[in-house]
This record gives sequence, structure tokens and C-alpha cells, in this order.
Amino acid sequence: MQTNPHSRTQAKPRGWLRVIGLGPGDPALLAPAARAALSEAEEIIGYRTYLQLAGPFRDDQRVHDSDNRVELERARQAFQLAAAGRRVVVVSSGDPGVFAMATAVMEALEQAEDPAWRQVDLDIIPGISAAHAAAARVGAPLGHDFCTLSLSDNLKPWSVITRRLQLAAEADLVIALYNPRSRARAHQFSEALALLREQRAPETAVILGRSIGRADEQVIVTTLAEIDPAQVDMRTVVIIGSSQTRVIDATEGRRWVYTPRWYPEER
Amino acid sequence: MQTNPHSRTQAKPRGWLRVIGLGPGDPALLAPAARAALSEAEEIIGYRTYLQLAGPFRDDQRVHDSDNRVELERARQAFQLAAAGRRVVVVSSGDPGVFAMATAVMEALEQAEDPAWRQVDLDIIPGISAAHAAAARVGAPLGHDFCTLSLSDNLKPWSVITRRLQLAAEADLVIALYNPRSRARAHQFSEALALLREQRAPETAVILGRSIGRADEQVIVTTLAEIDPAQVDMRTVVIIGSSQTRVIDATEGRRWVYTPRWYPEER
Repeated sequence: MQTNPHSRTQAKPRGWLRVIGLGPGDPALLAPAARAALSEAEEIIGYRTYLQLAGPFRDDQRVHDSDNRVELERARQAFQLAAAGRRVVVVSSGDPGVFAMATAVMEALEQAEDPAWRQVDLDIIPGISAAHAAAARVGAPLGHDFCTLSLSDNLKPWSVITRRLQLAAEADLVIALYNPRSRARAHQFSEALALLREQRAPETAVILGRSIGRADEQVIVTTLAEIDPAQVDMRTVVIIGSSQTRVIDATEGRRWVYTPRWYPEER
Repeated sequence: MQTNPHSRTQAKPRGWLRVIGLGPGDPALLAPAARAALSEAEEIIGYRTYLQLAGPFRDDQRVHDSDNRVELERARQAFQLAAAGRRVVVVSSGDPGVFAMATAVMEALEQAEDPAWRQVDLDIIPGISAAHAAAARVGAPLGHDFCTLSLSDNLKPWSVITRRLQLAAEADLVIALYNPRSRARAHQFSEALALLREQRAPETAVILGRSIGRADEQVIVTTLAEIDPAQVDMRTVVIIGSSQTRVIDATEGRRWVYTPRWYPEER
């Protein structure tokens, strides 16, 4: 059993490292624990776009922004600073543990270049993930069994991705897709759609949630047959309903989507 | 496209209904939007145990507590009150969209006994789910593809559950199990474990997270071979690692668990 880090009431005298998630980007959905970590931090590390959402920062805080592709470098820098006695926050969007910085921080810890890194006072502060934020905007599509898959093949083979999609479709899970479509690999999203269309009905509900909670938020409720790949990019979470997912037409053109708590005996 | 409810700055004059998630239970992890909804509410509806975490409430707020098995009744009551012009909050733990009240609220909306229910100003405010909170306490076990399954067969056939477990295991997904084991169906958790043990190595990392963020929090890092079912109940989230999930032994007996961002070419 491990003690609860959130119950600590005072900052320890030596450095620490906290990995936070901003949630979807709306300050009204940012956990007070993450807000406090940002306020107490001396060093703030993260991808440029997320730091803009997390700021503004004070003059006495050092901000280390970077490109999106250097997760492990950022994690190492965080340990170096914290081991040197600094109070360090690593910023992710959404939940830091879902296709985000907490994993890179763990990787850096395991490979620790300096034994002092293992002594660092380390906390992961969870956040509201992009999938849950997108789901809430339309109702409860993740209300029953679901899976969360990344379509990016930067670090895993495409064959593993298609196999997982195939099995998730067979299991009739609702499927939340992260990193669905970049300019460099637009064809893969089309391939994934083709695979899912073989398994699920054309009228299956699909939700495209982009930049949820930010000024440029877009939420689209569509179907597996009608989905327009041009509306999908790396900032979109795509939620594919199961055979049971239902759409409710409400007033003012609003559509709600949910996956019931029950499941029929035989399909 | 739909407008962002969180950007509303003033309460509307007529009633409203907000479905909130408390997150894991620690106030430091409660979204400010959920806190504000609780403060503005005239009627607060929920399962007794969760209302105790959400309170205390003011004398001018009416609290409707109930047993845990009457989700749909609670949802209907919420619409009745909101349609009558009251400001109503329905309280869930974790994220309201994950095996929680948002689904029952959608069901009540679809079956609306009174057309006025469809006019109700309705928002779902997401929260930090129990799985993400448990994951954060040990590192980043959900850092790669994962699925979230409920083991309860109250509303779905056990055959659907075992089929999904089997396919999720074949897909080598990390598996987060909700409602893993009640007194009435203790044998089902054992059956699920037996199924997973056929597919995954005995040393596969398993996390048991119970009452995360609350006074009686328990976090146990164990393995698929060594898991003790007596340590698992309905308040536990069980996270079963994939073939890639790794454990790091840190100082002071602390163990971190994460699932790497990369996946090998061939298994």
C-alpha cells in the first residue's frame, strides 16, 4: 500500500516533479491539484501549445517549451532539474497517463542516467482525458465497455493497430481513437474506417470531438457511413459507437449519444 | 457542431440539470465546473455515499439521497425537478459517463415521460475516472492502448463479458476492470482471472486501486499469478497490464508501473 500524495499539505524542502494534465483545456475542468502544482512550480516543461493553455506564468518561473516530438528529452530535463532541488512541473493535455507525458517520465525514470533521479519526489496528477471530455459533450457514449486506441504508428507497427481494431470491433466495444489522422498518414485513418465498416452497421454513431473546451471547439455527431475524414486531424478524438449505441434528437438540433447500461442476451 | 456549455457565464433563468462526476473523491481532483454546479444547485440527487463526499450542503439546498440500485428513478426525478424550473445536480463518482449516472440520465431523456424533459437545459460535466486516478497513483499503466470493462452481469450476460475479456486479452490491451467483485458474485472474478491467466504471463503487472483519493485509499501492485481476490471488492479498480507493461522498483519500497509508448515489431 502506498500513501496518498494529494493529502500532503506542505511542499517538501527539496525539489519535486509533478506531471499534470490540463484536462481538455477549459480552466473550469482543470483539477485544483494541477492548478496548485503550476502555481508552486519553479520550472515548467512542456509542449508549446499546452504551455499556452497552462499560463500565464510569473517572472520567477522558468518556462521550457519544446516541440511535440521530444517527450523523452523533456522527461530527462525534468528529472535533472528536480534532482538538483528545483520544483518542476511537466505539462500534458488531457490526462497525463493517456498517450501523454507520464509514460515518457516513467521511461526516463527506468533508464535513470543518475541514481539521484530515483530519489526524486514524483507525483502524477490525473486529469480529465480528451475522450471523456468529448463524450460528456454529447451524453454518455462511453457509458458501457470501451477501449482507447492510438492510431499513430510512430512507435508501434501498423499491423498491431489493425489487429487491435479488428478484435475491439469483434468484441463490440465502443472505440475511442486518439491521434487518428495526420497529414503524413491520412490513408491510415481511411484504412481503419474501412476495417470498422466491415464489422459495424453504416448507421453506427460516430462522434468527432476536436479541441474540446477550447475556443475552437468542434463536436460533430455523424455515422460510420457518413464520416468525413477531412473533419479529422491529430487534435480530434473519434468515438465509434458499438451496436448498442443510441442517438437522441433533442430540441434546437442538438443530438445526444449514449451507450446503454444493459446489453441484450443474444445478438 | 454544438456550442460549448462551459463557456456560459450566467445561470439561465429557468431550471437546469447538470450531471457531475466527483472524480476519485479527493477535493483537489474535483473540477471547478462541478464544484460550481454543486454550489448553484437547489436540488442535489445521488447515491448516499457519493453525496457524503460532495457535501456539506446549505440549508437552502434539498438533498435527495438514495440507494445505489435506482439509477433510472434518480434520473427521472432529476428531469421532473429541472422541468419544473429547479436547478438540479445529479452526482456520480469518478466520471459520470463511465458506468455511472450520465447513462441513466440519457435513458430517462430518451424515454421522456413528459415532452418538457427534452427542453431541459442539460450538461454533463466530465470528471477524472477511477481508472485514471488509480493509474496515476502508480505511474502510467494506461499509457498505451487499453480497454475499460465492467465485470458486473446485472445488466449484461456473463457470456458477453467473458468474450470481451478473451478478445481484449488477444489484442494485448491493458484492461481496466470496474465492478470486479461483489459478495453475491465472487466466483466471477475468479473465472475472469482464470481466463486472463491462460492468455498472459504469471508475472504480468496488476494494480488494485481502492477508494483512490479518499481516507481509506489502498493501492496494491501485484502480479497476475499472485493477485489475492480477497483484496478486491466493488470499490476496487483492477488494472491488468499488457505483455509490455513494466514495473520499476523505486526508493522506499515504492513501485511504479507503466506501459511504454512503443510496441515491438513482432511478438
